Amino acid sequence: MAVTRLGRNPMYQQIADALREQIADGRLAPEAKLPTEAELRAEYDVSRETVRKALGVLVNEGLVISARPQGHFVRKRQPMVFRPQAEFRKRPYSPEMDAFMTEYSAEGREPRQEIEVAIVEPPEEVAKRLQVEAGELVAVRKRVRYLDGEPFNINDSYFPLGIVRDSEVMRPEDIGRGANEVLAELGYRQVRALDELYFRMPTPDQAHRLDLGPGTPIGYHIATGYTSEGKPVRVAITVLPGDRHVVSYERHRDVPSEEA
Amino acid sequence: MAVTRLGRNPMYQQIADALREQIADGRLAPEAKLPTEAELRAEYDVSRETVRKALGVLVNEGLVISARPQGHFVRKRQPMVFRPQAEFRKRPYSPEMDAFMTEYSAEGREPRQEIEVAIVEPPEEVAKRLQVEAGELVAVRKRVRYLDGEPFNINDSYFPLGIVRDSEVMRPEDIGRGANEVLAELGYRQVRALDELYFRMPTPDQAHRLDLGPGTPIGYHIATGYTSEGKPVRVAITVLPGDRHVVSYERHRDVPSEEA
Repeated sequence: MAVTRLGRNPMYQQIADALREQIADGRLAPEAKLPTEAELRAEYDVSRETVRKALGVLVNEGLVISARPQGHFVRKRQPMVFRPQAEFRKRPYSPEMDAFMTEYSAEGREPRQEIEVAIVEPPEEVAKRLQVEAGELVAVRKRVRYLDGEPFNINDSYFPLGIVRDSEVMRPEDIGRGANEVLAELGYRQVRALDELYFRMPTPDQAHRLDLGPGTPIGYHIATGYTSEGKPVRVAITVLPGDRHVVSYERHRDVPSEEA
Repeated sequence: MAVTRLGRNPMYQQIADALREQIADGRLAPEAKLPTEAELRAEYDVSRETVRKALGVLVNEGLVISARPQGHFVRKRQPMVFRPQAEFRKRPYSPEMDAFMTEYSAEGREPRQEIEVAIVEPPEEVAKRLQVEAGELVAVRKRVRYLDGEPFNINDSYFPLGIVRDSEVMRPEDIGRGANEVLAELGYRQVRALDELYFRMPTPDQAHRLDLGPGTPIGYHIATGYTSEGKPVRVAITVLPGDRHVVSYERHRDVPSEEA
């Protein structure tokens, strides 16, 4: 995105703009050290306060990390692809998605997850989507996923208790074939899903659990899975730190015969 | 999301947690006035500084708006559905998406857009996706969309100049049948697209153009459209303020015959 430069923009913003441009075009690479406060003061002939304000803008945008006393550094972004379609379609269909997945592959990074299972009164946003009555209990599998020891995302999946009560879903262990397959074996195969994606600032609890720096928004992904009869049998909420993820979908134009 | 409460959480955070919970469960409805600083001080027996810190947390999370001297208010969220699939499939297929679209309908709200057309050297992220050489120029249609006079999102669509040079795409006017249809008429029908969605803090320029309050992240949606030969002919970048949008997709399990 081209940054519009107006002569009337305050100086700290012009400095932030200049540095942002250098980050965007790669002159300042990920993990590179920014010029020091003294260097910026000399270069732009401004006060220490102006320089600090400029750097503060970039920290709040999540582009720069302040690591005193060493200085300021360009934030490294190594996003992981979150591909909700993988659930119903293991292999991408298009060469473009194939190439994209390869570019962002997490290969060689060590995955790990922590799983907790509980029976709870669901939050309202879950109760509504699962269509359960007030006070009705549901099962939840709460997972924190790590890559190379760093927390990458949080996934909480909710299920009607009546369906999963005596199943593997209730065990706090990895389910090799996936919870969706267990639901299918129980007679509740999901054939459709509705995805909702919101962009928010994290709550302090999320920031803590995901070790988020300032200026790091989250994607809040809610997937509701339905059987062919339209019964919702799963609500999966994934919290995706913006500095670690890109969400991706592939789309195809319908062939005319399917448009009828 | 249940908020974990630990006895050792600082007081300002406990107050923020309590207010956040009231906002989440609707006791404090959108646009409701929060208790005054004096009321919160009395209720929790804390200093003015602690109360201000608690309110600051909620402002930074984008949940609360500070409107001095009137006080603090719960932010109203009236998101619009952004449905990238609408491009290739006008009508949703599933009853769930139908219901969802109806719930969030913008019906009765007055849409308007400003359109600007230019020939530019594309930003690197566009050049890469359109597979154009360094220095090659492209056409861009820049749109700001408004609802009821408020800016809702920014959409910049880039096209190879050679394809659209003498077409309607170059006129700064609404194209009733859509730019994609014009491309198809020119022999470049898009049959596939790859969507990427990033979550970021806005740049000052975006915050200004979209009139964003503090604590408002953006969704950054990049759609690349391909012909059946795999030629990229369009890159559309949409900036979606988090307080005004939900992105939604519907998914279907492939029937086995299509998995081959």
